[in-house]
Amino acid sequence: MPHSLDPYNGIQIQSDALGTDEIHFGKSLQYSLQKWQSDGRKGVWLAVPLEKTYFLPILVELGFQTYHCDERRIVLNKWLPKGPSSLPRGPSHLVGVGGFVVNEKNQLLVVKEKHGPVTDVWKLPGGLVDPGEELHEAAIREVREETGIETTFSSLLSVSTRHQAKHSIPTADLYFICLLRPLSAEIVRQEAEIAEARWMDVRVWVCWYGIDWGVGGGVLGDWVL
Amino acid sequence: MPHSLDPYNGIQIQSDALGTDEIHFGKSLQYSLQKWQSDGRKGVWLAVPLEKTYFLPILVELGFQTYHCDERRIVLNKWLPKGPSSLPRGPSHLVGVGGFVVNEKNQLLVVKEKHGPVTDVWKLPGGLVDPGEELHEAAIREVREETGIETTFSSLLSVSTRHQAKHSIPTADLYFICLLRPLSAEIVRQEAEIAEARWMDVRVWVCWYGIDWGVGGGVLGDWVL
Repeated sequence: MPHSLDPYNGIQIQSDALGTDEIHFGKSLQYSLQKWQSDGRKGVWLAVPLEKTYFLPILVELGFQTYHCDERRIVLNKWLPKGPSSLPRGPSHLVGVGGFVVNEKNQLLVVKEKHGPVTDVWKLPGGLVDPGEELHEAAIREVREETGIETTFSSLLSVSTRHQAKHSIPTADLYFICLLRPLSAEIVRQEAEIAEARWMDVRVWVCWYGIDWGVGGGVLGDWVL
Repeated sequence: MPHSLDPYNGIQIQSDALGTDEIHFGKSLQYSLQKWQSDGRKGVWLAVPLEKTYFLPILVELGFQTYHCDERRIVLNKWLPKGPSSLPRGPSHLVGVGGFVVNEKNQLLVVKEKHGPVTDVWKLPGGLVDPGEELHEAAIREVREETGIETTFSSLLSVSTRHQAKHSIPTADLYFICLLRPLSAEIVRQEAEIAEARWMDVRVWVCWYGIDWGVGGGVLGDWVL
């Protein structure tokens, strides 16, 4: 079966090894697993494209577990040695950013969302970090998308964790707040998702909503109050 | 089909709606999708247990995409309205922590790993954050597991991002360095994964390996040099 070795003495099965016949593949894989095990290999990895999900039952039967999935494929792995698996978990965290944008009048840029569980609270503009994107780039992009305000990055203000269930999945969120300096003043609201956007005295906002800045706490408290 | 509404005007199909007959389920789902679409619903969500992966081909055929998977199930979703999907991506980031443990002699706790791509470099002890775990708890746990040293959390020193491909998956890593204070001195090395563990003069370590502290840069530089 076509494969390569990874730096952890593991096996990467190439996706074209799947072919189109899952029964034939299953028999061939069973033979290879025995050989790799006797060779002292560790983890076995395989990506199944979404158009070949009919291979999954046979992989689950052979002891494979799901590691990660995206819009195109599902990645599975199997631990070969006896004893508990040392294979890593797949990506586990949703990462969000908020932009803390304060202008020279000490006004903070805030929005209300149109949809979702909380629509009556003035929030920092923000959203999820895209794959391959840096945290500060994501904050600048989200502020631009939601309010039309252009900014530059000043510093990271805080990071906090949230543990909750989304779509029945217990996920961990990481939320970063970036201090951004505005380069423009006129708000152009994103109509699809944002109900309102405005500049608000930063001390009023902090009084209303308080600050729970997580691990990075304290930095901002000194700065705005 | 048994379902509930989520706060985003979306549909959560209950897992027991799957039954055991994927053809029957597919027909019933097709009918429900049309009804939900005409009712103006948005995202449709469904978790498929690993023992029922034979449902996946019919879900992919009906336009569902994979969102997230763990050891027990694969979660899929489908966007009902016309136009591009507003559904969020699934968990995208691997989150690691390192413990920066310095004792009263200005010595840093460092380890060399037994396996993996880099085994000849003195590293901070650390590893992946568990689900439901706080960042500082993870750092304390990893230091204890790898070196036997008990610590308490002092502060977050830095956060950095890394963009690379793991097991052919382009993932984003977030890496947090926590400043920890040691409560014990005698190293008890974890034999399975750690080749060596020792205390090393912190200035020597910084000279050898340099500091690339990402977004939080600068804080530590002042402190150790």
